[in-house]
Amino acid sequence: MPQPKYVYFFGGGESDGNATMRTLLGGKGANLAEMSNLGVPVPPGFTISTEVCKLYYENNKQYPAGLDEQIDENLEKLEAALGAKFGDTENPLLLSVRSGAAVSMPGMMDTILNLGLNDNAAKGLIARSGNERFAYDSYRRFVQMFGNVVLDVDHDEFEHLLEEKKKAKGVELDTELEADDLAVLVDEFKRAVKQHTGSDFPDDPRQQLDMARDAVFESSGNPRAITYRRLNDISEEMGRTAVNVQAMVFGNMGRTSGSGVAFTRNPSTGANQFYGEFLINAQGEDVVAGIRTPLPVSELRNILPDAYTELVDIGLKLEKHYRDMQDVEFTIQDGTLFMLQTRNGKRTGQAAVRIAVEMVEEGLIDKPTALTRVPANDLDQLLHPSVDPDAKVEVIAQGLPASPGAAVGKVVFTALHAEELAAAGEKVILVRTETSPEDIGGMDAAEGILTARGGMTSHAAVVARGMGKCCVAGCSALFINEDASEFYAEGKRYAEGDFITLNGSTGDVLNGQVALIQPELSGQFGTLMEWADEARSLDVRTNADTPEDAKNARQFGAEGIGLCRTEHMFFGTGIDAVREMILADETPEREAALAKLLPHQRSDFIGIFEAMAGYPVTIRTLDPPLHEFLPKNEAEIHELSERIGVDARKLSERIEELHEFNPMLGHRGCRLGIVYPEITEMQARAIFEAAVDVAKRGITVLPEIMIPLVGHINEFSLQRKVVIDTAEAVFKETGTRVEYLVGTMIELPRAALTADKIAAEAEFFSYGTNDLTQTTFGMSRDDAAKFLDDYVKNGVLEYDPFQILDQEGVGSLLQIGSEKGRSVRPDLKVGICGEHGGEPSSVKFCYGLGFNYVSCSPFRVPIARLAAAQAVIEAED
Amino acid sequence: MPQPKYVYFFGGGESDGNATMRTLLGGKGANLAEMSNLGVPVPPGFTISTEVCKLYYENNKQYPAGLDEQIDENLEKLEAALGAKFGDTENPLLLSVRSGAAVSMPGMMDTILNLGLNDNAAKGLIARSGNERFAYDSYRRFVQMFGNVVLDVDHDEFEHLLEEKKKAKGVELDTELEADDLAVLVDEFKRAVKQHTGSDFPDDPRQQLDMARDAVFESSGNPRAITYRRLNDISEEMGRTAVNVQAMVFGNMGRTSGSGVAFTRNPSTGANQFYGEFLINAQGEDVVAGIRTPLPVSELRNILPDAYTELVDIGLKLEKHYRDMQDVEFTIQDGTLFMLQTRNGKRTGQAAVRIAVEMVEEGLIDKPTALTRVPANDLDQLLHPSVDPDAKVEVIAQGLPASPGAAVGKVVFTALHAEELAAAGEKVILVRTETSPEDIGGMDAAEGILTARGGMTSHAAVVARGMGKCCVAGCSALFINEDASEFYAEGKRYAEGDFITLNGSTGDVLNGQVALIQPELSGQFGTLMEWADEARSLDVRTNADTPEDAKNARQFGAEGIGLCRTEHMFFGTGIDAVREMILADETPEREAALAKLLPHQRSDFIGIFEAMAGYPVTIRTLDPPLHEFLPKNEAEIHELSERIGVDARKLSERIEELHEFNPMLGHRGCRLGIVYPEITEMQARAIFEAAVDVAKRGITVLPEIMIPLVGHINEFSLQRKVVIDTAEAVFKETGTRVEYLVGTMIELPRAALTADKIAAEAEFFSYGTNDLTQTTFGMSRDDAAKFLDDYVKNGVLEYDPFQILDQEGVGSLLQIGSEKGRSVRPDLKVGICGEHGGEPSSVKFCYGLGFNYVSCSPFRVPIARLAAAQAVIEAED
Repeated sequence: MPQPKYVYFFGGGESDGNATMRTLLGGKGANLAEMSNLGVPVPPGFTISTEVCKLYYENNKQYPAGLDEQIDENLEKLEAALGAKFGDTENPLLLSVRSGAAVSMPGMMDTILNLGLNDNAAKGLIARSGNERFAYDSYRRFVQMFGNVVLDVDHDEFEHLLEEKKKAKGVELDTELEADDLAVLVDEFKRAVKQHTGSDFPDDPRQQLDMARDAVFESSGNPRAITYRRLNDISEEMGRTAVNVQAMVFGNMGRTSGSGVAFTRNPSTGANQFYGEFLINAQGEDVVAGIRTPLPVSELRNILPDAYTELVDIGLKLEKHYRDMQDVEFTIQDGTLFMLQTRNGKRTGQAAVRIAVEMVEEGLIDKPTALTRVPANDLDQLLHPSVDPDAKVEVIAQGLPASPGAAVGKVVFTALHAEELAAAGEKVILVRTETSPEDIGGMDAAEGILTARGGMTSHAAVVARGMGKCCVAGCSALFINEDASEFYAEGKRYAEGDFITLNGSTGDVLNGQVALIQPELSGQFGTLMEWADEARSLDVRTNADTPEDAKNARQFGAEGIGLCRTEHMFFGTGIDAVREMILADETPEREAALAKLLPHQRSDFIGIFEAMAGYPVTIRTLDPPLHEFLPKNEAEIHELSERIGVDARKLSERIEELHEFNPMLGHRGCRLGIVYPEITEMQARAIFEAAVDVAKRGITVLPEIMIPLVGHINEFSLQRKVVIDTAEAVFKETGTRVEYLVGTMIELPRAALTADKIAAEAEFFSYGTNDLTQTTFGMSRDDAAKFLDDYVKNGVLEYDPFQILDQEGVGSLLQIGSEKGRSVRPDLKVGICGEHGGEPSSVKFCYGLGFNYVSCSPFRVPIARLAAAQAVIEAED
Repeated sequence: MPQPKYVYFFGGGESDGNATMRTLLGGKGANLAEMSNLGVPVPPGFTISTEVCKLYYENNKQYPAGLDEQIDENLEKLEAALGAKFGDTENPLLLSVRSGAAVSMPGMMDTILNLGLNDNAAKGLIARSGNERFAYDSYRRFVQMFGNVVLDVDHDEFEHLLEEKKKAKGVELDTELEADDLAVLVDEFKRAVKQHTGSDFPDDPRQQLDMARDAVFESSGNPRAITYRRLNDISEEMGRTAVNVQAMVFGNMGRTSGSGVAFTRNPSTGANQFYGEFLINAQGEDVVAGIRTPLPVSELRNILPDAYTELVDIGLKLEKHYRDMQDVEFTIQDGTLFMLQTRNGKRTGQAAVRIAVEMVEEGLIDKPTALTRVPANDLDQLLHPSVDPDAKVEVIAQGLPASPGAAVGKVVFTALHAEELAAAGEKVILVRTETSPEDIGGMDAAEGILTARGGMTSHAAVVARGMGKCCVAGCSALFINEDASEFYAEGKRYAEGDFITLNGSTGDVLNGQVALIQPELSGQFGTLMEWADEARSLDVRTNADTPEDAKNARQFGAEGIGLCRTEHMFFGTGIDAVREMILADETPEREAALAKLLPHQRSDFIGIFEAMAGYPVTIRTLDPPLHEFLPKNEAEIHELSERIGVDARKLSERIEELHEFNPMLGHRGCRLGIVYPEITEMQARAIFEAAVDVAKRGITVLPEIMIPLVGHINEFSLQRKVVIDTAEAVFKETGTRVEYLVGTMIELPRAALTADKIAAEAEFFSYGTNDLTQTTFGMSRDDAAKFLDDYVKNGVLEYDPFQILDQEGVGSLLQIGSEKGRSVRPDLKVGICGEHGGEPSSVKFCYGLGFNYVSCSPFRVPIARLAAAQAVIEAED
């Protein structure tokens, strides 16, 4: 019976494996085999397959029969290929040992370099390199690495001995130690190992190799790796590791040696030029460490022209082979080029778009491939300024990433001051405990907004996102003293005029003026978006509350409005009429106040319908609890009392009366419209009067009226009746009729669970996944920040469910709701209008559930368009 | 082809129908037929079946062919039986017309009496009764009733004319009008009808009958009836009405006539004695109206001995026939007894228990029937004082029914004062804005507790329920001024020392001292409970936080604890140590504070384990947000600062830091234990040290540790590990091992939706339906009071889902969770520990889902035991 094959050789232009054998050889092993097959010079070696890992765990950590023989055979082949021998005093075989599963995982074993060294081999290395210090430093490093990683001796043990040695020699840097010192350290390290393990450090290279192999397989069973696989739904099979054993090559063997990294195209701009850096007489880690300054890779042309030409040729060959921009690591040993690794290169959003589009033009890839090559979220970098990833930053506090982008400016504490300084040409950051409608002018004038209180749906966050302006909200670590024009963060004081930088995409508040990268919309961006629109089937709408937002969103390609929050209009010029309405004791008084609001709402709707001509506009009736519209402190109460002529005591009493312990679960949404149907009626009237007005001018209007926070069909029925009755009244009065839909926001678990009942009357569902996430998890977005951070860091949750849709929990309600809804109304229109509507994985999930559309803030529309296209392409794969 | 039968005769000892034909004849019609079959003297008549109602609506409001003929035939039969004729001047046939479906519904047509009257028949009535005033008063009432109910003339029209007449005559009471006045009124009423309807009042008795029949059928299609049927899930079929046409009999025809109502047993006590009251020379409505004082029915023996003997005999016969206590209406006309109605009599909880048990002893019914005869909720009346239903009350405000029962006492505003007055022998009601742990002594001393703020799970509510003490909470209509020792309700002032009465079962606050009925536990109660325990399969546990509660609940028959809230212990003597823990900056400080708490918790657990010897005890780890333990105002902060030696500013800052917008959705439940595992560890240690201590003394302990507010399996895993590690440590230290379970509370939608994941590690689920209702509906119990009232009153919701489990929405999560949980762990123990665990319909729902147990507050344990028995019996039917 022929023995199963466990070990796969690579190198010298022939390999047992190739790139398709990722599951069996791991990503690294398959890639090394592939490169070797392509004739790329790779230091030869062999891969012990993941099958061995499987058998090892299945058979109580016993290896299959024949493995040892196969390793021996491959070692012989390797020795033959290199003319080297294990432990040889002339040309010793030295190896690297690395783990490598089909997918990369944290917690796996670190690399071991220079395996094969012992006292004899060290002599051989001196003989070969002519560099005694280099040989003993390699030996010292090997003992340390092996001792730590394989034999589990604490890293500090070795560092301590190294420190002692430097102290004894009176030097400060490792590099100041000489060959003799290092040779002594090797002995000291070995003694330390014996002391901790009770055994001698293994001198036999074959034994070293076996032990390293064991350590690799053991590491794939450690708790951290297991947890990671569970959290990321990585199957047992994909989580098994292979062991890659590869001949060492040295870039630090003199002036004709060197190491470097290179990209086949510019990873910042995407320009089609070979790009990278290298160091002569250095190992790979030196290039990264930054002690010496590397040279641009183009300089290599002058120093080692043959190696350079070969490198560029290989780069192009690999790019063509993998049909993607490559990030390669190389080492030149004595003038001979070796490729150590190739992988698809990381790139900025800008570069990703350019490379993807240009590769289609060059015929390298097709359009669907191009669309999957740009991570949808990376488009953000093309739409907002971002913090330069190379900049050194000092994080002084962290808040919620309430509105993406980045901003630099001087701290100001009042909206008025922000407007004054901005008028004088200064860039400012408005810092407030929380913002209110009175601050709009200052928010508009500022580069960015920072608040100490309030969550992702606070006034500051919502307004900033609408403006496309960077905002960090709910930064509770700030102690803001507005009277003294100062704030404290971690005990340090920041005064008006001090510079800070906000990163609205991460929530970081940074000290001083940090370099930003400005966004740039290239022609390639437009091309990619066109391709995305051709590919996708999901409509992309926007969340927009004003005519300005609507126009802006149209430019980003929004195909209608998925959520127009009418309360936003309430916060505007009509705020005092809103307050009169809230303070009214009886229905007639309330109606009188509402009558004052009607023209404001109507004119806003007219503007929105015009901007969205021909596209549907989903308008949500009043949602927030009424107390949000009332003043918060004594001074504001007093001022309002004088302005609208309502007794201050009455005002205070009403505020007290409206106080809620848990406003998120209080008297809001359709519960307002049910207790005060006149509010819904006024809003419906404003909508239909506006619709008729616009329709009469020949513009197509498609209003979709959305009732919020419905939990029971009876709630929807009552509100729907008010809307329909009002529509009929307006049509009768004006003699004009427009088509419209009445539907509901599904944002409570009960609504999803009883969706069959609700869909009997509702013509569309729009999932409000912000609120639905809050109730499904029982977590308030505003309050959860305090522990969610801790949760995500410790892996309790894989990600913040307010940013990425929780497909397992919240997602199951989306599925239950859509299925139940469509069971009674097969043509039910279903969409999503929570923040997740612009988050790529959530967009793809919605596509999978057969939704009709997603809706997101204007600046995320391009991201959603791309993600929607990717969803189709990925589903076809 | 024989015509289908539409009309069913009854009377004279023979009937076309019987009691089983409820669907066809309606409840009333079937019962009249049944009585007649039994030989009970019933005024004869006939029933037009519900089938006609069906055909009427199906055929565009046309009656089926042959109906008229069948009515004519039955009228003739009726005239023959009575020797009377429609419109006769000697002995006119007069009829009553009533609706009657299989189930009773509001909004159906009112009764029409004296139908058949016109000017001729009025003369006949005078001839027969010899009483002109009686005849014209009957005529006037008929025109009024018919005009209003059938012809839709506003009631006020007639009342206005009546008032005018009285004014003109200078009298005040209707009864002061004479025959002539009434005859004129008849004409005026008829003119009013003509004016409003354009047609003459119908004088033809046959036409009157047809019109009344039409009105009955029309009323079953009115919107109120339709809504009621939809809300109560009454099928189309069961909602159809029949029309009952019956000969009038008159109890007001002289000294040998009379009317009365009687019960076959005492409806207050259940004693087996004929009971009731009557009036000589009066109609039924006079008995109810209370203008004359009725006599006890036993007096009838002396006045009309034959009629009395017959009445008692009939009563016994009906009781035996229906095998239940009967409530009968009777009329004696000229010495002849007529039974107008019999139905199962309403009774108090006390009476229900006694009647049920005695009827089994008498061999009338079997035990399962006896168990279904007592509405489980009515047991409350045997356990708590209740407001006398006959008492006249003045409701001054309404709050939440936070703890059942009733209490009378003098208003006091401080706990201290409550204790002082109670010590002096006064009964007091403690009135507070909200209560805090410091008030415990005063709450214990008071008869009842009234708070202006806080919901069903507020401190006051939870403590009161545990004490079995009446409490009305969250009564937001009160303005309490504790400094001035007064409160205002609807503008009226109540001062310290004023008497008020609380109804904790309804939430009513009543003025003055209202009569209460004291509870009484009879031997029959014990017997019924024994039968219930034999019948049921669901275990009944209790929610108890202290050894005292636990002992109390054992006496009520609790079979273990389903929820022990450990924070309750935190609120007790250890409160300052809790605060030190919260204020600690670092883990060691926190651990030091926790070490102080450990002995408190341990001794509480020892007491609880002892009280529940042999029964399982489910202990929930810390649940409420930490800020609940900190002082709320400046004075308290200052006082605490001095007592525990922590800087007041630091205290304020920490309170500010812990502030949450929506504490219900905040940092609570297992989220505390995950961020501060040392808290869970201390609690687990206290539990296991106590368990070992008790077990060593030979007492069986069965601790079940419950992790609250789990939404994701990872949360549970982490907390479970802390519990298990601690258990093992304690077992090792003490050398004793006890069996225990670790499970979780399912109180978030996400937990139910991912129950298969969670059950992989959790050994039991306990549904926390309070929180689950909050999140499923997105309604905070504390805040919803403001609109839930409105919702229930207007039929948006059928009932308050915090009192009665919402089976459609929340219930579907119970089902999903149990099914998913048991799909991976078939022996998963499942229970419920929300307030619904003691609510009968919810208990039955849990039985239907195959739960293992329900858990409720001690005083509801008997209710749950009975409901659990009823669930089994009803499922077998």
